[in-house]
Amino acid sequence: VSNASDSPIGVFDSGLGGLTVARAIRDVLPGEDLVYLGDTARVPYGTRSADTVIRYARACAASLVRHQVKILVVACNTVSAVALDHLRDELDVPVLGVIEPGARAGVAASRSRRIGVIATQGTVSSGAYERAIHAVDSRVEAFSTPAPLLVPLAEEGWLDGEVPELVAERYLHSLTSRDVDALVLGCTHYPLLEHVISRVAHRLAGPELAVVDGAKATALELATLLGARQMKANRERGSLRILVTDRPGRFAEVASRFLGADVEALGVEQIDL
Amino acid sequence: VSNASDSPIGVFDSGLGGLTVARAIRDVLPGEDLVYLGDTARVPYGTRSADTVIRYARACAASLVRHQVKILVVACNTVSAVALDHLRDELDVPVLGVIEPGARAGVAASRSRRIGVIATQGTVSSGAYERAIHAVDSRVEAFSTPAPLLVPLAEEGWLDGEVPELVAERYLHSLTSRDVDALVLGCTHYPLLEHVISRVAHRLAGPELAVVDGAKATALELATLLGARQMKANRERGSLRILVTDRPGRFAEVASRFLGADVEALGVEQIDL
Repeated sequence: VSNASDSPIGVFDSGLGGLTVARAIRDVLPGEDLVYLGDTARVPYGTRSADTVIRYARACAASLVRHQVKILVVACNTVSAVALDHLRDELDVPVLGVIEPGARAGVAASRSRRIGVIATQGTVSSGAYERAIHAVDSRVEAFSTPAPLLVPLAEEGWLDGEVPELVAERYLHSLTSRDVDALVLGCTHYPLLEHVISRVAHRLAGPELAVVDGAKATALELATLLGARQMKANRERGSLRILVTDRPGRFAEVASRFLGADVEALGVEQIDL
Repeated sequence: VSNASDSPIGVFDSGLGGLTVARAIRDVLPGEDLVYLGDTARVPYGTRSADTVIRYARACAASLVRHQVKILVVACNTVSAVALDHLRDELDVPVLGVIEPGARAGVAASRSRRIGVIATQGTVSSGAYERAIHAVDSRVEAFSTPAPLLVPLAEEGWLDGEVPELVAERYLHSLTSRDVDALVLGCTHYPLLEHVISRVAHRLAGPELAVVDGAKATALELATLLGARQMKANRERGSLRILVTDRPGRFAEVASRFLGADVEALGVEQIDL
């Protein structure tokens, strides 16, 4: 295991959604080399048992450790909810999930101490955001609601217009009716819809409501961590390697939308785990 | 292998969507015993490679053959597109997929010989409906379009109102603009939205357009097959056994919506494949 500052950052997700986290990391830390692994052959993890998710997460982490990563970012809410402690116990590199940064940013953004979270059904059922928010500030009331249709909307690229507006409104109403003043986007897919989600949330709850992007919060905490450990790379512009375990239909189109850059131009390698 | 008329019918799907086919079979053939297997631990199949789908399909079929089924219904469009010939070669029981019945019913319903198909991205990419329609009548022009958002709408139970109307309109417009006069619902999830889909299709293309439910077409062909082979059961009311390989969150709610009956009351068994 290498901890040299010029070693790459490892990022993994069950699929392609985590590319929004890779994108945020590239924005915040443009000099870092990144190795992204999407376990597209076994996506989605959200419907698997905890034991299975832990097994899959170990395989992803082991694969990235072989790339000499200096830190591991778990860009998957399901793995962050279920397997983070296991990975931290077993690995010699620091491990950062997406739930704790999102929870901390949510608490930081709220004045009323009433925070809403939208996420997938699996993440909501796990109660992971509530636990993470209470760990930061036990006086905060957290309310979460599943918003599953936002995932296929993001994958399809229906990012604006009547349909995403109506869908967002239907989901957000149950949170804004509880007077939250911060809303955490607790799924890797949602940053693509942040524009619509923010507009609807502000219409329902007023312009004071803060929308917190978990991907960006994770990238910012990663920068803090690397800075504190003097592990930042000293480059102008880092590279991005993308590894996937399968290339489903429309892979390049969907992946490029999440990354905000042409993945085929970057090159994609298919691997077995 | 038993071919006795009182043996059960085996039905399998990658997940719970095939319960719409089981429901149609129970409507058309109420005296039959059914064993339904949903491979919920490995859903979705649509993004897997053909080799993997064939391997999974073999495991599902083998499991149902052990239940002495007299006929096997593949209630999964992906398996029907990719693995049907393999299963037919390897099994001693007759095998019926969902694509051929849907294609035949589409051709039967069309006068203009212009047929539209909505399905998942994987099914559309496979070209399986076009091939099946051309095998019935090579003069027919078939147009297919992916309608992926209809799947989570069905799973979420958003079966009526503005959102499903707008989503259906967006997808159907590309087909009705090609003057189709029959529309095949080529995904197990779509029968739940048949009401909305029909309303939108008739608004766009006029009341003459025929909407063909692939699940019902499959159940009707199954009745024909069993009748021709004198394999129909002689019961008043048959049983339904439901086997799944995992029980994801909200399993009972979603499964009951697809089946149109309370699955927990029927009993659900979890098995390994």
